[in-house]
Amino acid sequence: MYTYDYLYQFTTNVFLKMGCSEHYAEIIAEVFMAAEMRGHASHGMIRIKDYFELWKAGRINVRPDVRIVHESPSTAVVDGDRSVGMVAARKSMEIAIEKADKAGTGWVATRNSNHFGIAGYYAMMALEHDMIGICLTNANPLVAPTFSISRMMGTNPIAVAIPAQNQPPFVADFATTPIARGKLAVAEKKGEKVALGFVQDKSGKPSDDPTILKSGGSMLTLGGDRLHGSHKGYCLSSIVDIFSAVFSGANFGPFVPPSVAYLPVLEKKVGEGTGHFFGAMRIDAFQPADEFKKKMDKWIETFRASIPAEGEDRVLIPGDPEREAEERIRKEGISIVPAIKDDLVKIAAELGINFQ
Amino acid sequence: MYTYDYLYQFTTNVFLKMGCSEHYAEIIAEVFMAAEMRGHASHGMIRIKDYFELWKAGRINVRPDVRIVHESPSTAVVDGDRSVGMVAARKSMEIAIEKADKAGTGWVATRNSNHFGIAGYYAMMALEHDMIGICLTNANPLVAPTFSISRMMGTNPIAVAIPAQNQPPFVADFATTPIARGKLAVAEKKGEKVALGFVQDKSGKPSDDPTILKSGGSMLTLGGDRLHGSHKGYCLSSIVDIFSAVFSGANFGPFVPPSVAYLPVLEKKVGEGTGHFFGAMRIDAFQPADEFKKKMDKWIETFRASIPAEGEDRVLIPGDPEREAEERIRKEGISIVPAIKDDLVKIAAELGINFQ
Repeated sequence: MYTYDYLYQFTTNVFLKMGCSEHYAEIIAEVFMAAEMRGHASHGMIRIKDYFELWKAGRINVRPDVRIVHESPSTAVVDGDRSVGMVAARKSMEIAIEKADKAGTGWVATRNSNHFGIAGYYAMMALEHDMIGICLTNANPLVAPTFSISRMMGTNPIAVAIPAQNQPPFVADFATTPIARGKLAVAEKKGEKVALGFVQDKSGKPSDDPTILKSGGSMLTLGGDRLHGSHKGYCLSSIVDIFSAVFSGANFGPFVPPSVAYLPVLEKKVGEGTGHFFGAMRIDAFQPADEFKKKMDKWIETFRASIPAEGEDRVLIPGDPEREAEERIRKEGISIVPAIKDDLVKIAAELGINFQ
Repeated sequence: MYTYDYLYQFTTNVFLKMGCSEHYAEIIAEVFMAAEMRGHASHGMIRIKDYFELWKAGRINVRPDVRIVHESPSTAVVDGDRSVGMVAARKSMEIAIEKADKAGTGWVATRNSNHFGIAGYYAMMALEHDMIGICLTNANPLVAPTFSISRMMGTNPIAVAIPAQNQPPFVADFATTPIARGKLAVAEKKGEKVALGFVQDKSGKPSDDPTILKSGGSMLTLGGDRLHGSHKGYCLSSIVDIFSAVFSGANFGPFVPPSVAYLPVLEKKVGEGTGHFFGAMRIDAFQPADEFKKKMDKWIETFRASIPAEGEDRVLIPGDPEREAEERIRKEGISIVPAIKDDLVKIAAELGINFQ
């Protein structure tokens, strides 16, 4: 088991050694740690290697000039200058919050960025300002539209954070696919099949093979099949892609660059890098903040009091699982599986630092 | 078969006879007709009776004072004064568009409203202004959160309309449940079962019985079950509910009033009427409008060129089915099933007008 401080310091050091400023290295480490603490290890230390390899391949800029290139009172477009995604994303959300402070709401579309970790981190930045936070991002294409076999979209997540008074905040943070890609990797490692409704084979037939992406298969959108509303998941995923990339001038759909160095940069591009979209809405642009937050308490209490189905012991509010994971991990520490530890030891050695 | 003009004039007359102003009656008729023309008959003439009965029960205000009660440069809260939903919704979207014109984006939360027809109509109002339009609404509770059997949410739709240059606009308009409630009614009338994944019985077991809502059952969220991501549908539906009702001060979740007169007004309320949420985003607050619209053409062309799965002949863009329905219905006319025609004849007789 590792402590927060040990991994935070290690991650900071990795990015310092890559050439990031102290400020940027700390931002990046904070987002990595937020993923680990909230129980989303799939976006935590396991990804350090991907960033390290992208850096070695010259595909990320460790000294970026992240800047506004277009704006209105309530909007901005930010160019991330090929930065580590966390750097462009954090700056973009800060701009959204500043805009909201003056205009009631702030909306920022960001281009020329890279993978940014967990979307929920940026949405939650709004909470301490008595604002609602929103974060979307596109991602490299693995997902087929309804009726198609072409990999056109990422698992394009949506995160929305809404503050309450005495209750913990409402925090939704979810991919617009039934499962995250990481679950396929886990099933593959265990030699297990997956349930139908997650992936299809190269001709579009339902598949339970977690390795199917390697043989021309694709992931399905939320809903799974047309009968169960996959076209709604396709709508959602498309909206995330358009807001993130067409608004900002990033690459959309099948042109989103891979977030790993072992996949080549695509020959064709329709914009710059990966795209994100951020929103901040000042509560008191709608209702006095205290009144709103009391209403949110009431909303949360009402939904928490829903009657559980037979065999279930309780009904959850979005954000509950992550908050409970954080409480547990704060006590128990962070576990790193041996294969990931080995990677980190190797990276540390290459950079002349220590990991044990 | 009926013509657009005949049904538009009839609907206008119905609402004039109820006491609406000419301006309001025409707005209401236009939204009813938009549903029919876009192939969503479930939100068209079949609903006239519901509004008529609500009016007779004194549950809608035909002479409302729809007004802003709170605002910031980019936001407003509108009180619908118990109006027919279309009247409050249209005014609210107009305000969102005005706000966007000045501040880049405009966001309006509306309370004290009623059922407003198809969400897509309001989102599409933004298109002619070179804006993106967004519309959400909550609705009377039929849907259970993941792990629950309590009917806490409506089928809470999301509509997003995005303009393109030479391509038709991208228009997504979908309930956050696998199916609309109307499909259950259709299966019931035909004496058919429905697929699993749409509804559950009163203990939370999967059900294929389309009448199950009458015996304590509930509808499921998009995703269907936890394994296939129903918690993501629950997140979406919750977000729509909170934006529509907590932002505006309307009733949320299980407190949303029924949109039919044969169900009693709830004893308990936590706000005023039904709630909606509207957004308008000026394209050129992000990108020069022409550049953006050309990119949207490219997005649409790229996705339309996705390879169809085996047995499918093409891949659709959100908005294609409704546009094609409209082309067909413009040629063929609007069909009204006999039972609905009988209702309209009776309503006409009661109001001293004609329907044949």
